[in-house]
Amino acid sequence: VLLVDAERLRADFDELGSIGALAGGGVSRPTFGAAHMAAREWFLARARAAGLDTRVDAAGNHSALLVAADPGARTLLLGSHLDTVPVAGRYDGALGVVAALEVLRAVKDAGLELPFALEAIDFTDEDGTLVGLLGSWALTGALTPQILSAPRGGRAELVAGLERAGLSEGGLLGARRDPDGLAGYLELHIEQGPVLERDGIDIGVVTAIVGSRSFRIAFTGAADHAGTTPMDARRDALLGAARFVAAVNEIVVRDFPDCVATVGDVSVEPGAFNVVPGRATVALEFRSGGGRLDALEETLLASAAREAGALRLTADVIRVGRWEPARLDDEVRAAVWAAVAELGLSAIDMPSGAGHDAQALAAVTPSGMVFVPSVGGVSHDPSERTTWQDCVNGANVLLGAALRLAGAA
Amino acid sequence: VLLVDAERLRADFDELGSIGALAGGGVSRPTFGAAHMAAREWFLARARAAGLDTRVDAAGNHSALLVAADPGARTLLLGSHLDTVPVAGRYDGALGVVAALEVLRAVKDAGLELPFALEAIDFTDEDGTLVGLLGSWALTGALTPQILSAPRGGRAELVAGLERAGLSEGGLLGARRDPDGLAGYLELHIEQGPVLERDGIDIGVVTAIVGSRSFRIAFTGAADHAGTTPMDARRDALLGAARFVAAVNEIVVRDFPDCVATVGDVSVEPGAFNVVPGRATVALEFRSGGGRLDALEETLLASAAREAGALRLTADVIRVGRWEPARLDDEVRAAVWAAVAELGLSAIDMPSGAGHDAQALAAVTPSGMVFVPSVGGVSHDPSERTTWQDCVNGANVLLGAALRLAGAA
Repeated sequence: VLLVDAERLRADFDELGSIGALAGGGVSRPTFGAAHMAAREWFLARARAAGLDTRVDAAGNHSALLVAADPGARTLLLGSHLDTVPVAGRYDGALGVVAALEVLRAVKDAGLELPFALEAIDFTDEDGTLVGLLGSWALTGALTPQILSAPRGGRAELVAGLERAGLSEGGLLGARRDPDGLAGYLELHIEQGPVLERDGIDIGVVTAIVGSRSFRIAFTGAADHAGTTPMDARRDALLGAARFVAAVNEIVVRDFPDCVATVGDVSVEPGAFNVVPGRATVALEFRSGGGRLDALEETLLASAAREAGALRLTADVIRVGRWEPARLDDEVRAAVWAAVAELGLSAIDMPSGAGHDAQALAAVTPSGMVFVPSVGGVSHDPSERTTWQDCVNGANVLLGAALRLAGAA
Repeated sequence: VLLVDAERLRADFDELGSIGALAGGGVSRPTFGAAHMAAREWFLARARAAGLDTRVDAAGNHSALLVAADPGARTLLLGSHLDTVPVAGRYDGALGVVAALEVLRAVKDAGLELPFALEAIDFTDEDGTLVGLLGSWALTGALTPQILSAPRGGRAELVAGLERAGLSEGGLLGARRDPDGLAGYLELHIEQGPVLERDGIDIGVVTAIVGSRSFRIAFTGAADHAGTTPMDARRDALLGAARFVAAVNEIVVRDFPDCVATVGDVSVEPGAFNVVPGRATVALEFRSGGGRLDALEETLLASAAREAGALRLTADVIRVGRWEPARLDDEVRAAVWAAVAELGLSAIDMPSGAGHDAQALAAVTPSGMVFVPSVGGVSHDPSERTTWQDCVNGANVLLGAALRLAGAA
């Protein structure tokens, strides 16, 4: 069985982790900042040092290429991203990119002739300093002028960033690649959650990337004097919001075991010790990898109305966000399982609760993801960590699955 | 039975309500602002027009005096305050001051010789733009340099306000009056709560001014990714805080029917849709007119610890405020009840959930309060209102009780 060169992978991983390194551990490589640009240059240099072609497209996606003998061969993409949130860990995105590069080197060194070209790709701005999934949306044709007009990192920051990177909005909007030329997409990533480590599992075979919906719900009652208003005369908006927060947890745990729901914020008006809250607005988000988003939405909004009604409050619902779930490809998943089995590793099928470039790719080409355990489930923090053995396991599964998809194992 | 002159009272009340009047109704007379100063000058002028002496002490308390035949007679204080919170109603404080003035005029016009001097007093800064209970604390000797060093309205505002009013901190701290010269204190005030109106009662005979305690309680768990962290792996700080908010309500309604408890604010960190809350800090306040503050504190803090423990959170408690309850005088209360009976009005004994100058006076002289109904329980708002009949009832009870305390009825 062909394996990656773990020492070479380790050297790359450590060198990459020194770019944008923070004094207290971890890295910070926000999109188009100096550290991010340096990491991308380093990636191209490493590819060229391995005798691979390199390519940068109009969306700024950076690639290393192992071409096939047949110039008309389709391309199997292996990738992730080198940008990070500010003050991040060394593994999120970076592991997938260096592992993809290592897969190309391992195949090249083994002299294997594959029916596909292999491309190790670093997508632009996955983690959303500017837009989020910017490079993968551009490559798959999902990027629109509307998205660029109101980016989550701010319009001025996007314009300045593109300028620094020598990119243009026209280029981004024209960077779509013909899906007929693609054989599929495979991404190795850290889990960013506690499940694999807690259950002692080596590999997560990702079944879907969850969809999510988010709402602001404003509970409105009456602001009254906290000393002179008896308990039975109150219309306490925060009490309604609090009962709703408790109910969300009960409902999801009891009736929607495959989903998660979070109330991540509450703001109270007027918000003083001595005033009964007149309004309490909660930020609700829930996610599901399957088809339960509609049912969960209906149940939770009904609960909000019920809790409000019981206290003579109103509950006004504002829809904030909606992200459809992306199912990953069954054949790609089977290839990952086969590689896991051959390596003697343990694995489980699991959804991804976080967003990834694979959800953009899944819309145009058979796509899959491989998860490795996150220590303590931590991510987006300098303390983010995956054991080195798990990193190597993930790279070998990526290699094995790619070879299976190419019919070479 | 001697009654107040309702038309004269009405004319005074309306004229006072024009000082600092707001376009949309109500008044705004923050301490030592132009409207407040004008209201106090108006009060002294009305007293002089009635042939009463006037007095301003070193704490800025403004008084009208009806002296007794015996120059060594003690003084029965009748009063309230002319300052308001910003954007306030016309009744809070103002009604008590004009009613006290009218009581002096009614006694004077009737030619009654009382064994006490009567003093209608407007206390400085009751409503706390600068300090709260400033004039009554000064008069009773409860004001300390510590209180003046960190006033709740800000130190610079206090210094500037005293300068505008021609007062000094030394003067304030030396304004204590010898309690041996006082015969008692009686205050007419609006209820600021819904009880009297709801139950169709004319007069509230105040038994005590409630004590209050306030705390910040910080529930701390772990901030985690809202997509990748399963429900059973979370330590959701807001869930703990929400269950506590619900429990506070349940506990007080079920086990402490004579108390009120309020969670008036919650702040969440980091406070985003997609992050499980790592910390949620609640602002808790509770009040009791009786001896239940210790038991309620113990019960509520135990509940916070229990809710935290059940979710693997910690609950850190910071003590913020503590205000001891003030029992009002039984003889003064009996005098109020006798006046109520003679006037054929309905009344109930009730605690005051809000603070008043009477709580300062109660520490040094027999003190009592008379409440009249607040429409809808509203106060500290331009829509604050008490029916005029209720205002007249309150003034007549104040007069009748004062005469009883003077042995003249």
